[in-house]
Amino acid sequence: MSPLIALLTDFGTSDPYVGVMKGVIAARCPQAVTIDITHEVSPQNVRQAAYLLRSAYRYFPAHSVFLVVVDPGVGTARRPIAIQTSHGLYVGPDNGVFSAVLEEVDGWQAVVLRQPKRLSATFHGRDVFAPAAADLACGHALNEMGTPLTDLEQIEWRRIEQYEPEVMIGEVIHIDHFGNVVTSLGPFEWRDAGRRAVLHGRPDQPQLAVDALTAQVEFAGRQLSPIRATYGETQPGDLLALINSDQQLEIAVNQGHAARLLGAKLGDTVRLRF
Amino acid sequence: MSPLIALLTDFGTSDPYVGVMKGVIAARCPQAVTIDITHEVSPQNVRQAAYLLRSAYRYFPAHSVFLVVVDPGVGTARRPIAIQTSHGLYVGPDNGVFSAVLEEVDGWQAVVLRQPKRLSATFHGRDVFAPAAADLACGHALNEMGTPLTDLEQIEWRRIEQYEPEVMIGEVIHIDHFGNVVTSLGPFEWRDAGRRAVLHGRPDQPQLAVDALTAQVEFAGRQLSPIRATYGETQPGDLLALINSDQQLEIAVNQGHAARLLGAKLGDTVRLRF
Amino acid sequence: MSPLIALLTDFGTSDPYVGVMKGVIAARCPQAVTIDITHEVSPQNVRQAAYLLRSAYRYFPAHSVFLVVVDPGVGTARRPIAIQTSHGLYVGPDNGVFSAVLEEVDGWQAVVLRQPKRLSATFHGRDVFAPAAADLACGHALNEMGTPLTDLEQIEWRRIEQYEPEVMIGEVIHIDHFGNVVTSLGPFEWRDAGRRAVLHGRPDQPQLAVDALTAQVEFAGRQLSPIRATYGETQPGDLLALINSDQQLEIAVNQGHAARLLGAKLGDTVRLRF
Repeated sequence: MSPLIALLTDFGTSDPYVGVMKGVIAARCPQAVTIDITHEVSPQNVRQAAYLLRSAYRYFPAHSVFLVVVDPGVGTARRPIAIQTSHGLYVGPDNGVFSAVLEEVDGWQAVVLRQPKRLSATFHGRDVFAPAAADLACGHALNEMGTPLTDLEQIEWRRIEQYEPEVMIGEVIHIDHFGNVVTSLGPFEWRDAGRRAVLHGRPDQPQLAVDALTAQVEFAGRQLSPIRATYGETQPGDLLALINSDQQLEIAVNQGHAARLLGAKLGDTVRLRF
Repeated sequence: MSPLIALLTDFGTSDPYVGVMKGVIAARCPQAVTIDITHEVSPQNVRQAAYLLRSAYRYFPAHSVFLVVVDPGVGTARRPIAIQTSHGLYVGPDNGVFSAVLEEVDGWQAVVLRQPKRLSATFHGRDVFAPAAADLACGHALNEMGTPLTDLEQIEWRRIEQYEPEVMIGEVIHIDHFGNVVTSLGPFEWRDAGRRAVLHGRPDQPQLAVDALTAQVEFAGRQLSPIRATYGETQPGDLLALINSDQQLEIAVNQGHAARLLGAKLGDTVRLRF
Repeated sequence: MSPLIALLTDFGTSDPYVGVMKGVIAARCPQAVTIDITHEVSPQNVRQAAYLLRSAYRYFPAHSVFLVVVDPGVGTARRPIAIQTSHGLYVGPDNGVFSAVLEEVDGWQAVVLRQPKRLSATFHGRDVFAPAAADLACGHALNEMGTPLTDLEQIEWRRIEQYEPEVMIGEVIHIDHFGNVVTSLGPFEWRDAGRRAVLHGRPDQPQLAVDALTAQVEFAGRQLSPIRATYGETQPGDLLALINSDQQLEIAVNQGHAARLLGAKLGDTVRLRF
């Protein structure tokens, strides 16, 4: 079985940056296979990257190495790290980008990566992270890669607050290629054949059972109800709130572009009244 | 020889969707290699996807699996299918997206894919189609994958009509990265050293021999003549009609961007007077 | 070790062009692995492609095949070539796109590629270059591929002129995904712990030692000083001149988009006064 490295960055694809990282990997661990998660994270948006990584990692083999470079602090004192978990090895900057995954996996061990001899000031993806990912893919043990680390930077990667007993406040955390507006409210789990949606929220928050038929989603001056499980009963052009394939609350237009219709952007507030 | 899966979707590359499908494939058939045809089909444009698949499939090895997810009907009753042909195996929704390929291959067999236990409402690429493509790539027989199917949805994937004895009407079916305006008129085959272009058209239409030197192409208020085989005799900036590398009639600007110059968009009408 | 083919084109990723080239490669040399450098070279911008190839090639294994298709002269008499060097094999049109790499490698041998039987007028990436790259990847010797060639087209791929004793003039050669404005002035090499930056420039030019603290970079009506090695001492939003990870002079905004701020575009003039 070939070792697998999955890449997630904010590098875009118009420069050689991603290709160069893959060249470094090919030179250092020729048998490794690479898969792009995406390179279109909003520039330096660590919280969005944390969400997108959470959407993806569980569908990859458990032995995969995730090379994540969204790194506004490149060239400063932020630590380059590698983390071993029950599902995946992770390589990138210690800026909280792994926070969402770390909520879900069963335990972790981490190291601060050793600094390579040749190090540019601005492209640690090439000089630090790709070589480390290649070495892990090729079987180097975590503790050969650097010095153990027991505290990891963790961030509030998603806003999800209880505002009143029956109002949760969240924000837009991602807008997808189809214009679907993904919110920070979730993950939801359907119960009672789609009548109730249980909101799990942050690890420190209690679960909340939401009546999907009567709950109201407020966004951009619109009130959307009910919360749906599919586009099924809607017509092309209808605006709707639904639980998406990552169990997050999402605002969508059936065969249309919700973000354009509503002028939505990352960080906009959404309210769930239930 | 590694099994090969070629992907064609309207997912774009700014989300983890494509990467997640590849993760599913890597977990299920680790030896499979994936190649992207493109993920920039216009959202939910099944006819454009049918054309782009036809442009690509014949250049891939005959044992390739084509994973095609352009699926406006996801979550409705449209059937998930797999098709085996003389050149390639095809996996995707039964919405006509394979129509153009099925015109060219020698016979086919198809099945309705079994529904997996875990199925989201909106991401069958991940939950149904990628697993099926992986299983086919790893050698599962077609008839293990579901129940046989004898009628496939076929669509008029391209408009190409004889309007008067000497006028064919078509439409813009694709605009490429260089701004070349690809029309539904084709495939053409050159005869007599570039003097005559034989239009094969739809399977139910007679062949037409067009005099390339005197034929006129009418588009966006312009009249273009002759129909050319190359950019060769034109100057940078010249607008021209030519038969492209897929044998379709195309409107182009030598080293320029025809679509921007002419304001062309998908579905616009083109006339060929011959 | 799998043979490796790295691709660099101006094809974009919205058409099947790149996927078709990879299909051709998979059919002809199934064991070859492909890596995308980028497909977003500005349409037909041979000089930019020469720069981007130079940024990337040295990070790939020395046995890699580089398939480069930026080819405004497709369909004319420009020659299709393959080049063998001390670091990499190169396949593409003989239009100067390999000029920057050829300045750095130790010697080369080249051939004019034989013309294949089936040849379209507009897509030699598919019909000529991908098959040749596949054959080289699969071990065909260079001299089996065509007839030897002793003169290669070389171009001035970057403007870098000494205007007065203490002024160098260059231009914008690339704008990256983050809006960083990469100039033709370079490569620079740091000396004296970041106090002096030695400009190597073109092979026919003398080296120049620049005092990084007092040198001034003039661009778009702004004067930037000093030349920095990192973003380290600047604040988010600051405009700065720095030596980038390819040793070129670059104009950037810390966590911002310099090209948008300054209205920069390819070809704009930059002055270095030292």
